[in-house]
Parts: sequence; structure tokens; C-alpha cells
Amino acid sequence: MQSACFTAETTTNGVIEHDFTVGGVTGAFWSPQRADRAPLVLMGHGGGNHKKSPAMLGRARLLALHGGFHVACLDAPGHGGRPRTAHDEREIAAMRQAMEAGEPVGPIVVRYNAHLAERAVPEWRAALDFLLGTPWVGADEPVGYFGLNMGTAIGVPLTAVEPRIKAAVFGLHWPDALAEYARRITVPIEYTLQWDDEHIPRESGLALFDAFASKEKTLHANSGSHKELPRSESDSAVRFFVRHLEQPEPQQPDLTW
Amino acid sequence: MQSACFTAETTTNGVIEHDFTVGGVTGAFWSPQRADRAPLVLMGHGGGNHKKSPAMLGRARLLALHGGFHVACLDAPGHGGRPRTAHDEREIAAMRQAMEAGEPVGPIVVRYNAHLAERAVPEWRAALDFLLGTPWVGADEPVGYFGLNMGTAIGVPLTAVEPRIKAAVFGLHWPDALAEYARRITVPIEYTLQWDDEHIPRESGLALFDAFASKEKTLHANSGSHKELPRSESDSAVRFFVRHLEQPEPQQPDLTW
Repeated sequence: MQSACFTAETTTNGVIEHDFTVGGVTGAFWSPQRADRAPLVLMGHGGGNHKKSPAMLGRARLLALHGGFHVACLDAPGHGGRPRTAHDEREIAAMRQAMEAGEPVGPIVVRYNAHLAERAVPEWRAALDFLLGTPWVGADEPVGYFGLNMGTAIGVPLTAVEPRIKAAVFGLHWPDALAEYARRITVPIEYTLQWDDEHIPRESGLALFDAFASKEKTLHANSGSHKELPRSESDSAVRFFVRHLEQPEPQQPDLTW
Repeated sequence: MQSACFTAETTTNGVIEHDFTVGGVTGAFWSPQRADRAPLVLMGHGGGNHKKSPAMLGRARLLALHGGFHVACLDAPGHGGRPRTAHDEREIAAMRQAMEAGEPVGPIVVRYNAHLAERAVPEWRAALDFLLGTPWVGADEPVGYFGLNMGTAIGVPLTAVEPRIKAAVFGLHWPDALAEYARRITVPIEYTLQWDDEHIPRESGLALFDAFASKEKTLHANSGSHKELPRSESDSAVRFFVRHLEQPEPQQPDLTW
């Protein structure tokens, strides 16, 4: 077991926030006040972001307050103040150059995210060992994963190999490095894409959704560009985890025709 | 104005239900107890069903209790005890024959639903004139439409011509007779399809979603066959109408990337 501990604790409007580290990897952990044992939702942040970006804080609050979940987010490798390798610096520079030259960033993002996933997947599994060993979460509580963009590039390979993850929300990524892992995922998933995404071709998003081997899966496609994901999709994710982590009975199909 | 009146009234667990007729067309109207002015959601039932089938009663309750809406449903032409024409009888017999012979029913359903829509659209508009003239609903309240299958075959041409409908939930139909109307619809819509629908090819559902001219539109595609629509999609529809009928400000795009 790697060295791991919780550090600072703050409480804001009904949500308790802890910082923690596991083997040098920095993370944040949120709980509703007076929460007992509850399922845990892991959140993956996007590229260029960190564990307490506005999107992460917003989703953590929704999950904790509306879903009653414990929530955890790790800084991805090279993010959130974690040291960058020479490889990180080269790829970040390559992305910047491509954006400035008006060239497609997709191929670089796919390649770099796949590299980050190789580093991040074992970090997440170690963090899960640590968190499930705490008195608040407990070893038997079901675990969910919620991450878009780079959070999906890491979360799909993670969910393919980590049996403790019982449900996941993904979205907004190219299928290239991910389809082979998606075909190994059988837990319920929700996948979101933007119908007018200027970076990720629509057919690519549909193909990745199709690749998931889950018996229960849902696609949400919203009109709008890559960055115009509606806020309502976060609410949808919370309800998805409530259905799948807190209600273990399978959903009865609705008798409409 | 056609002759119209409310008839029987019952109250069950917080929802008041009225029967009504407009120009001989039978309908049902639901309200939350102690409801004042509230937006109105029109529901279209599926082929072979009627205004108080289990699916309609279930959705009416969700809309009234969780959304605070008034709700109305009409018996479609030839349904719910309304007299069938010779045309109705011929098409129903044709569908039965096709099903018994194991032949595709799609072409017959598309054709017959288009015929029913021609009769039903003016009936819905007259019902709307009546309901918006009642003290409970009021002429200025926004109106939504929620109907799948045959409910979509009627609802799409209706929404294309009826400006009082401000948001709609559709799904589970072939695009053939509907795409031209969809291209005239600009209000927010949510469209649901079944990813493994054995009657409606997936590409057809995606093409119909693509045809809607709405600036704001969302596709929900769930794994499963034609009849396996998850119950959670009714909850999703309620939240859609809460967002679009009760909150007139446009949704701010979420700042995630």
C-alpha cells in the first residue's frame, strides 16, 4: 500500500471537502454532511484542468447534495501542479502550435491522452484502494466514474479493467484509442456528445457509443459545438448514478408502444 | 367555437382528473390539486391505445406532480371508443395481416399514421383553443407536447403548424412523412430512439433527429428493442418541460472542456 493520507478539511454549504494524497498523487474528496456509508463517484477532469476546477466543484456539489454520494477527483498526471515530464511539455507545445496554426488538434489530443491514461489508470486504482479502505466509504460500496473529454480518455480504459466501477458517464472524445476498451465494458454507461462538434466528427462519437458492450447504455446528443455541453447533462449524470448505484434492481422496461 | 365541455371529475392522490369533449372528440385533463395557472402539456398516445392507457396515466401523474403542469390527452381518431371509418378498418386489418405473416409493418404504419395525423391535427388545435380559454390554464401559458410512436406521427405535424406549442418531446417513429415537418420546427425538442429497434432502422431515427431545425435539441438513444424504452425517459421528459416551459431564460452553456 502506498503512503496515503487526508489533509485539509473544509465545509461549505453542506458539503465537506478533503484534500488527500496517495503515492504522491494529489486528490480531493467530497461528502455530504452527516453522510454515512454511501456510494463513491470518481470524477475525471478535462485536459488543461485540475481536481478543483469550476466544473469539478460544480459536479461534486450536485453529486453530494442531490445524490448523497461521496465524490473524489485526482489531478491527472502533469496537471494541477503535479510535475510535468519532458513528454508532457512536448505534447502541450505540439497542441499549442497546432491551434495557433489552425490545424486539427485531434490526432495530438488522442495520442497524448492515451499516454496520460497509461499513467493515470494505476494511480486511480491505488486511490480507490485507499478510499474504499476509509470508514466513510467502505469496501463494499458501489463505485461510479464520471469524466468527459480527457476524463473519458482515462476513464474508459480504467473502467475496462477496474471491476469495482459499476456504472460510468463518459463523453466528448474520439474513439481511436478507446473503442477496444469500450468493447470490454459491460456495466451501465451514459455517453454524451455534441451534435455539431467541430473537433470530433459526429460519426466518431456514435461509433464509440456503439462499441460499448454494456447491456444498458444511453446516448445523449445535444445540439451545439464542442464546448456548449448543456448544464442539464450534469443533472442527468447525477440521476444516472442514483439509478445505478443506489437502486441495484434492474430497471423494468416501460410498457409503451 | 365547437361545442365543448368538461364532464366527470375525480381526484386521486393529489391529481384532479377531468373528462372533456370538444366537437365530439373525447379527452382527459389532469391538474395538480391546488394548481393555479400553470403551463399545459399535451400528450399524444400510441397506436392502438387511448387517452387513459397506463402509459398516459403514468406520465400525466409525473407531469402534474413532479412538474406542476396541467396535462391533456385526446383519444386519436378511431381510438378510445371513437368510431372507426372504413379506412381505419382496412389499415388495421392490413397491419394485422402483415404482423401475422411476419412481414414488415413499417410502411403500413407510416402511411396510416400520416392519414390519422391529417384528421388529428385540427382536432388538437380546437382542443387547445378550448383548454386555453379555461380559467385553470389561461391563454398566455406556454404549451408543451409529449408523444411517442403514433403520438410523434401526429405531434410533429401539429408542432410544425401550432405556434402555441413551445417545446416538445418526440420519438420512436420513421422519418418518411415527418422530416418535412421537422424542418419547420424551431422550438426546443427532445427525441428518443431505441438503439436496437427492430422496426425502425437506427439511421432513420438519427436522420429524423437531424432534420429538426431547433437551435436546442437533444437526442436520447437507449440500448434495447422497440418496446424497451426505459421509464427514466418519462422523468427526463418532465425535467425537459420544467426547463423549457417554466424557465423562459435560455440555458447557459456549461463551461466544461
